[in-house]
Amino acid sequence: MSDSAATEIVPKVVIVGAGFGGVAAARALKGAPVAVTLIDRRNHHLFQPLLYQVATAALSPNDIATPIRGIFRRQTNVSVVLGEVNGIDTARREVRVGNGAVAYDYLVIATGARHAYFGHDEWERFAPGLKCLEDAFEIRRRVLEAFERAEAEDDPVERCALLKFVVIGGGPAGVEMAGAIVELARRALVKDFRKFDAQDPRITLVEAGPRILRGFDERLSRAAIRALARLGVEVRVGNAVTHCDASGVVVAGERLCARTIIWAAGVSASPAAEWLHAEADRAGRVMAGAQLALHEHPEVFVIGDVAHVLGCDGTPLPGTAAVAKQQGRYVGRLIDARARGRPTPEPFRYRHYGSLATIGRKAAVADLGRVRMSGSPAWVLWSLAHIFFLVGFGNRFAVLSNWAWAYLRYDPRAKLIIGTRPYSPPLALPAPAKMLPEPSSVGS
Amino acid sequence: MSDSAATEIVPKVVIVGAGFGGVAAARALKGAPVAVTLIDRRNHHLFQPLLYQVATAALSPNDIATPIRGIFRRQTNVSVVLGEVNGIDTARREVRVGNGAVAYDYLVIATGARHAYFGHDEWERFAPGLKCLEDAFEIRRRVLEAFERAEAEDDPVERCALLKFVVIGGGPAGVEMAGAIVELARRALVKDFRKFDAQDPRITLVEAGPRILRGFDERLSRAAIRALARLGVEVRVGNAVTHCDASGVVVAGERLCARTIIWAAGVSASPAAEWLHAEADRAGRVMAGAQLALHEHPEVFVIGDVAHVLGCDGTPLPGTAAVAKQQGRYVGRLIDARARGRPTPEPFRYRHYGSLATIGRKAAVADLGRVRMSGSPAWVLWSLAHIFFLVGFGNRFAVLSNWAWAYLRYDPRAKLIIGTRPYSPPLALPAPAKMLPEPSSVGS
Repeated sequence: MSDSAATEIVPKVVIVGAGFGGVAAARALKGAPVAVTLIDRRNHHLFQPLLYQVATAALSPNDIATPIRGIFRRQTNVSVVLGEVNGIDTARREVRVGNGAVAYDYLVIATGARHAYFGHDEWERFAPGLKCLEDAFEIRRRVLEAFERAEAEDDPVERCALLKFVVIGGGPAGVEMAGAIVELARRALVKDFRKFDAQDPRITLVEAGPRILRGFDERLSRAAIRALARLGVEVRVGNAVTHCDASGVVVAGERLCARTIIWAAGVSASPAAEWLHAEADRAGRVMAGAQLALHEHPEVFVIGDVAHVLGCDGTPLPGTAAVAKQQGRYVGRLIDARARGRPTPEPFRYRHYGSLATIGRKAAVADLGRVRMSGSPAWVLWSLAHIFFLVGFGNRFAVLSNWAWAYLRYDPRAKLIIGTRPYSPPLALPAPAKMLPEPSSVGS
Repeated sequence: MSDSAATEIVPKVVIVGAGFGGVAAARALKGAPVAVTLIDRRNHHLFQPLLYQVATAALSPNDIATPIRGIFRRQTNVSVVLGEVNGIDTARREVRVGNGAVAYDYLVIATGARHAYFGHDEWERFAPGLKCLEDAFEIRRRVLEAFERAEAEDDPVERCALLKFVVIGGGPAGVEMAGAIVELARRALVKDFRKFDAQDPRITLVEAGPRILRGFDERLSRAAIRALARLGVEVRVGNAVTHCDASGVVVAGERLCARTIIWAAGVSASPAAEWLHAEADRAGRVMAGAQLALHEHPEVFVIGDVAHVLGCDGTPLPGTAAVAKQQGRYVGRLIDARARGRPTPEPFRYRHYGSLATIGRKAAVADLGRVRMSGSPAWVLWSLAHIFFLVGFGNRFAVLSNWAWAYLRYDPRAKLIIGTRPYSPPLALPAPAKMLPEPSSVGS
């Protein structure tokens, strides 16, 4: 229903990526005299900080994903396009989407990052990472199937490997994942299985650096290790994983036999630097100027995980939701100002309000600069912060009720194995033909 | 934690399939002096009558699926095995699961049915059917992507085909699917799209037989056609689809150009007849005796969609949840009686309480034998019946709140495209290179 009579010529803003950065930029352009096209290859925005809870069956996809069109239903200067960007022509000012192209006057690149294996891409099939809903389903499937196979396994060595879980990477993502798996395993799942008990599942968190949660105060790192130990997670720091295959990992020369390995050790930016022929850092992030634009192309902005932007301390800003949102808002306002011919804002400056990481159901660490917390108070703060940030996506109530349910009953609601195939046999290591163990107890 | 000291030798019951029939049989064996092994290739039981609501984005998988282990957590004589059965050795009394085998004294086959294309298996990729959660995700993806592509399409002929949906099969499944799609399209989705309006999406229901809802009273068939017409579904009866491809279907020599086709026209039983070398009917259903056992193997039972059982009127019982549940309960009680050395019950007799089919958000038809209803009263009855049957699966509240939300706001919560690939281009018909339409209106 294009309303050509009412059309006036306004600058065209193209935003690629509807993560925290892209959505914030588009929202900041509300009311601006521009026509925004927001392109994403998925139809939903994802609240990624809670994705690990989908992977560990505590939440369902609906709770943390919301259709992009719904977010901008009432913001009439935004058009949403579902499509995969495969190139950018900065000379003609066009973004190539599938077989077509979209012209821009201003371009915002907010395409995020994928997990990176530091030259060991062959590890990906053994140690999947977590970036999208499909990743979460895959990890959920592997974790739940490991328990299923352990239940059917007679060989104690193999059963031990099936009940061993290795999480690689001691940042907030790895810590949260390890805490969630150990709680799922020891509290929720054991009730459903008959042949092993709560102490059998073993979770190891491997961090190459000298301590976990490097971005936090050192005392909080120690508090996190204690909290993880209480839950039953073994933490190994100071040695990187040197090998990874279907039967486990090698750390400091020692083989850890584990059928389930999860990668939370590193990311690299999407290929935006190649599209733009722009300078990038080692992680593939595009070097951005003080106003988050490219030096050669002041009409092209990079924000979020795909951008290399220095903080006040001279180090690059981390790839967090808070950074991406602030950058998106900044760029939106800057484009608004330019479109109206007003002076553009001061250079971008990131305001750090704090870092939060949760460890299981009751503990967390919070580093708010002057204030530091661990244990239950930090957990309450973490919960409130996440519920608060889900506001506006309409999912607050669903998340809250699912959490309350899981919390009260230690019984995550979402223990469904969903995949393309009904049941996939082990990745490697075919089991020899054998009789399955028979049920041996009687009762009701 | 096998408790070998307390073990006594009890009959081994193996149930294959954890649908309505298999779960009912296992539940009926609660307290029976038997050791039950319940095998399914998925880890969840599915409330299939509401699966079309997952496909049309009104419900999320969690609402209608529940892990099998959770259902039998407290019934200690049931062991759950996740695995794919690939054969049965009736001489050795073993079920082959993956590479292993499970021995039985009593065997209950409740493996259900898949959609069947009557010799046109090549139609499946163009017209997927709906039997499991993955099917529902696939149909949801196709429906939602059709709207996305229509929004980006300039060619009016192609846009028309993208907004045309054909449902093949006028049974309850087809009627419910057509009603759900038209409401999704005309009420919920149009708000999210800018380039077409509520009247543009067109839904056609094709039934080869002389009328839709054949199992219902003829007046209810007519009421259903009127209700569908009010919603905007065109119903064509009396002609079968003779061809099906990526660009549409052919009915009575006429080509209906539609990019989205859904198959609800027929099912055939799982390959149990081959496993058992047993007599089967044309739909692959195993011929069962009066006690639902095979004539040659009184220890092997077939129930639900995989069984050919005659009703009082001499015609085979339909493949409904009610039939499967009653048969499961009957077989469970029969095995219990045999295991205790008590007299076995009378031959199985199906008690028909009624047939229900819903048509969109407010209309339904109910055929309770002497009482027949259509319109809102039938819809209320349908809703109550479905909520009631979800009792015991712990999902009642979730379904109720999702429905209430969707009902009040005309806004289904679950409009997520989830698949293995981020965005899949059209099945066929690659679009020529072109500029995507530009956003043309300005506002906030």
